[in-house]
Amino acid sequence: MKKTELIAQILKKRSFLCVGLDTDIEKIPAHQQKLPDAVFQFNKNIIDATAAYAVGFKPNTAFYESEGTSGWISLEKTIAYIKKHYPEIMVIADAKRGDIGNTSRRYAKAFFEQLQADAITVAPYMGLDSVQPFLGFENKWVVLLGLTSNSGSADFQQLKLDNGRFLYEEVVSKAISWAGSHQLMFVTGATKPEMIARIRSLAPDYFFLVPGVGAQGGDLNAVAKAGLNSEVGILVNASRSILYASSDIDFAEAAATEAQKLQQEMESILIRKNLLK
Amino acid sequence: MKKTELIAQILKKRSFLCVGLDTDIEKIPAHQQKLPDAVFQFNKNIIDATAAYAVGFKPNTAFYESEGTSGWISLEKTIAYIKKHYPEIMVIADAKRGDIGNTSRRYAKAFFEQLQADAITVAPYMGLDSVQPFLGFENKWVVLLGLTSNSGSADFQQLKLDNGRFLYEEVVSKAISWAGSHQLMFVTGATKPEMIARIRSLAPDYFFLVPGVGAQGGDLNAVAKAGLNSEVGILVNASRSILYASSDIDFAEAAATEAQKLQQEMESILIRKNLLK
Repeated sequence: MKKTELIAQILKKRSFLCVGLDTDIEKIPAHQQKLPDAVFQFNKNIIDATAAYAVGFKPNTAFYESEGTSGWISLEKTIAYIKKHYPEIMVIADAKRGDIGNTSRRYAKAFFEQLQADAITVAPYMGLDSVQPFLGFENKWVVLLGLTSNSGSADFQQLKLDNGRFLYEEVVSKAISWAGSHQLMFVTGATKPEMIARIRSLAPDYFFLVPGVGAQGGDLNAVAKAGLNSEVGILVNASRSILYASSDIDFAEAAATEAQKLQQEMESILIRKNLLK
Repeated sequence: MKKTELIAQILKKRSFLCVGLDTDIEKIPAHQQKLPDAVFQFNKNIIDATAAYAVGFKPNTAFYESEGTSGWISLEKTIAYIKKHYPEIMVIADAKRGDIGNTSRRYAKAFFEQLQADAITVAPYMGLDSVQPFLGFENKWVVLLGLTSNSGSADFQQLKLDNGRFLYEEVVSKAISWAGSHQLMFVTGATKPEMIARIRSLAPDYFFLVPGVGAQGGDLNAVAKAGLNSEVGILVNASRSILYASSDIDFAEAAATEAQKLQQEMESILIRKNLLK
């Protein structure tokens, strides 16, 4: 997916929502749990219910791997379903991969070629040659961890280096010399809007993927204030608050309602910021 | 696996070798490529050929994921084969995972419960709550990235913090307050023995998993000098130099010869250091 296509879709849908597919088989409504490939069936319902409000879907690989081979099959089917029915929506494999070059090349093959994802989240700790193999695919994206939404982000990401920068700032500064904003984004956790603003000043034209709104307590308005740029430049992810909006037979409608609510909040923010009329 | 069992096995086999199962279907000997589930068949041959010299097997998940569902099945079968026939050998899933708590819990389930690995490599960037869920399993291990063997380790790991420590030293210092040496190890790349020595001084009684000997150019003697402690305390991994020692019909024998050569070098090191008679 090209950056221009992503922006066009945001403006068309009046939304910068990404729906996280962290599908937990134990949280799927009871009546669906008995279906064959319940995870895929649930995802299909969620995707159909929320596609009108979302510009991205973000399957979290851990929730599939933990079900073994059948989980991997659900993941393959989920991405194939999105690519077939909603090819305009960005699929971000939330996989947090990263290893030495010959291994990262394999992960890139797994996610970009085998699974046909548009983007993958990558951990920066191993540096340039662990990230580079993911950058060799046209119209595919790396979403590098900058600042994450969890409390552990204080342990290393927020440490100060002897050059005066925080580690997360150094990661962003270095990474923007590795790749342009047409193929690199950053994860910037919703729970720290003041740090999102610092990252925005370092990387003015890059997209940020912002998790942590919803179940993790991040505030959409604060995130937008800190992160928006003239091309919108943020994708805000919500997972649990949409997927499990209801645990009953109406779960898909409840998910649609929740996604629409976020879309409407986003729309008013975009209008307020003169990014939409 | 308990630490005492790991040490007992090292002393019994007179070896601290870990064989990396980075099985690349394109590098498997031609006559084997046609077999159904060629990757598993190749692994089985390598495992049988090298088990006498190895105390660990380390499947690298990228090489399996890149083959899609069939790759995941090969990975499951490979680990199950090791656990059945060589239960005394440690299985380290080289997966470099790490995410927010609810997601790391899923990865722990995937690798410790579904796949039955004894250990998993974990990336530290997201801090304590991303590592903690892996620590809740009895006799299972976290192998945290400290200092990796690749050139990109200079980008962030080797940056100096304003407290005077390098980032990799901070990772090790913090992590040893999170877990004891009975369930936590560190990855310390073979290509930087002087830094392995610094990590050893910070974490005297922890095991180190040392990749980078062989194809990546690390020197076994230098690694041993820097890393050994009174309980041996290091596992040295070799992957490509063993797996692809021959690309012909004799690949398993060639792998055995290569593994035995490393075992013998390790044995003389252990004798020289008075850790064996």
